[in-house]
Amino acid sequence: MSSASAVYLDHAATTPMVPAALEAMTAELVRTGNPNSLHASGRRARRVVEESRETIAQAIGCRPGEVVFTSGGTEADNLAVQGITAARTAADPRRRRLLASAIEHHAVLDTVEWLGRAGRAEIDLLPVDGTATLDLEALAERVHGDPASIAMISVMWANNEIGTLQPLGEIVALAAEHGIPVHADAVQALGAVPVDFAASGLDALALSGHKVGGPVGVGALVLRRDVDVVPLVHGGGQERDIRSGTVDAPAIAGFAAAVELAVKHQAEHAARLEQLRQRLVAGVRFAVPDAVLNGPADPDRRLPGVAHFSFPGCEGDSLLMLLDARGIECSTGSACSAGVPQPSHVLLAMGRADDEARSSLRFSLGHTSTERDVDALVAAIGPCVERARAAKG
Amino acid sequence: MSSASAVYLDHAATTPMVPAALEAMTAELVRTGNPNSLHASGRRARRVVEESRETIAQAIGCRPGEVVFTSGGTEADNLAVQGITAARTAADPRRRRLLASAIEHHAVLDTVEWLGRAGRAEIDLLPVDGTATLDLEALAERVHGDPASIAMISVMWANNEIGTLQPLGEIVALAAEHGIPVHADAVQALGAVPVDFAASGLDALALSGHKVGGPVGVGALVLRRDVDVVPLVHGGGQERDIRSGTVDAPAIAGFAAAVELAVKHQAEHAARLEQLRQRLVAGVRFAVPDAVLNGPADPDRRLPGVAHFSFPGCEGDSLLMLLDARGIECSTGSACSAGVPQPSHVLLAMGRADDEARSSLRFSLGHTSTERDVDALVAAIGPCVERARAAKG
Repeated sequence: MSSASAVYLDHAATTPMVPAALEAMTAELVRTGNPNSLHASGRRARRVVEESRETIAQAIGCRPGEVVFTSGGTEADNLAVQGITAARTAADPRRRRLLASAIEHHAVLDTVEWLGRAGRAEIDLLPVDGTATLDLEALAERVHGDPASIAMISVMWANNEIGTLQPLGEIVALAAEHGIPVHADAVQALGAVPVDFAASGLDALALSGHKVGGPVGVGALVLRRDVDVVPLVHGGGQERDIRSGTVDAPAIAGFAAAVELAVKHQAEHAARLEQLRQRLVAGVRFAVPDAVLNGPADPDRRLPGVAHFSFPGCEGDSLLMLLDARGIECSTGSACSAGVPQPSHVLLAMGRADDEARSSLRFSLGHTSTERDVDALVAAIGPCVERARAAKG
Repeated sequence: MSSASAVYLDHAATTPMVPAALEAMTAELVRTGNPNSLHASGRRARRVVEESRETIAQAIGCRPGEVVFTSGGTEADNLAVQGITAARTAADPRRRRLLASAIEHHAVLDTVEWLGRAGRAEIDLLPVDGTATLDLEALAERVHGDPASIAMISVMWANNEIGTLQPLGEIVALAAEHGIPVHADAVQALGAVPVDFAASGLDALALSGHKVGGPVGVGALVLRRDVDVVPLVHGGGQERDIRSGTVDAPAIAGFAAAVELAVKHQAEHAARLEQLRQRLVAGVRFAVPDAVLNGPADPDRRLPGVAHFSFPGCEGDSLLMLLDARGIECSTGSACSAGVPQPSHVLLAMGRADDEARSSLRFSLGHTSTERDVDALVAAIGPCVERARAAKG
């Protein structure tokens, strides 16, 4: 699926499309019809979109009218953070504070910081503990201190680098006392842990196609009907006037097929990944005894398919390239910032020193992962760490 | 390609994918790799994206670094209009006026109007004449009157309803005297008329995949490197930090294949469409002698594949549905606003009365159109107009 014989341990960056999604998408690619056209071809395409919306709603416990299709997770996060903040501030100018965890994905964090620089919000980044779990006391203090000043809260469902699940139930309960909307990026959570929008009490939720076996270029913002949002993209008025642009029926059909399967098979998928992860963790620890496994020990507080290690004395980037030369593909953290060698903002927020934050690798498992993949990593990691340490001197 | 045996005369809304684009896209859909990942699979995907960027640059006469991939034409228009206006106003607060033709596509027009409502710009919509051609004198008056107050000018290359080409050379020359940036939506122009970015003198140009035989869900903003733009979507810093979000390698590969072919075959394609259009226009006029053909008579001043008629005494929507019942698919104008029965803003700007503006249909030809399609329309239009007139009473 990836390079000829590569061992792909980077499913959190992107995962291969599942056959059902590929089929649903390609079947639609050869058909014609703009879902906004009134004629038969347009109505047929519209039907595909609306059936996909229902499939996704059913799978994640929301109403079809709450699903707003976007070009992906990043756009969904931007729409939630920029759009809800703008609407809340417009409704009451006192609401200028934007609270987000310090370990948000760049799609949220960079948006939050940009709103701060642009003078559209006052930014308050919430601390996390050493396992990358949100500090609820710090949040409570801020919320109760001056609730009327808060525009919204954004905390991700599961961290994309470490895999830590966040205490959303407690966050939502705190926010609800003051009617403050909460958005969660659930891009890494969907298909890995149970995700139920209605049960979560969230106001907004971001999803991405290509992280659950669907295509890249499509995602959704799940948004309660009573939450106001200022659109980012204006035009033809598609998606309840929240997100204009020709609706991408083929990608949406593939996305819905992937979400349906990912949710249906979530429990068995998670159990299989958890076993593979145990094998991976034990193997890496055996090969590199001083490797530090990051994140919570409790399996109920982390994703089943992510193992994040610090390798003292190594540069993560060098280690990544040494493994890549042996056909093993992983990440130093978020692929999105992987082009720029800088310490992970997540590890820094966890209290790690710069050096330590640079010495980390994320191995992320997915639906095509096998014991053979894990064993290949285990065989390679020892010699690669040795060479990376030698290179660093 | 569309409904079983439908006669598809709505290529301006969306056109079937060409086989080369479908192949390039589906080949990439079965591969894995986030173009921002550092490992081999990531680098392979990145190569696909960069080769596609070069293909498009070559085809439209720009440098690869000027191509910013987006989720489509609407996002590209929004990025240009919101982003350039914001950057120009930030650089000099006197630049608050946003000039756009009154016949822009909703992706531009709704964005412009939203900026006005949000207090981020002062809006000045430029008049057009009875053929939907921009009034250059009115533009000159505004530009020379107070050039320092103008943030930017947005005028489309070819109108999507009537097909009228706009005098971009003159507009760019006027704006250049005062260093005012000009954006053009070239979504309908690409592949239908020659489009050369460097030769045009434009600062920004919006393109869409699914209007040239590529996939929906992808487009580009072509942007001179020296033009500042404030991003809409923040995050991982993809696309020169102008447009964040996982780069959609499969859609981009399909887009590039389609653009390459569309530009390569533009001249013969246009000549073929022009002939089909002549047959269509003559046939419709024979069947409905009082039908009014809208737009310029001069073929050098309009798109070759669009024929836009007013049918006095008809409701365009009723006529559309009557034709659809006979398997003939067309549009009342822009598919994007087709869900809402309202008079076309383009016809109103051309000076037509409300009633007249509601009585119109657009027939748009494309790469799969045949004489058989045209003849089917010609056979059906007479009886349909009769029934539509009877229905209106």
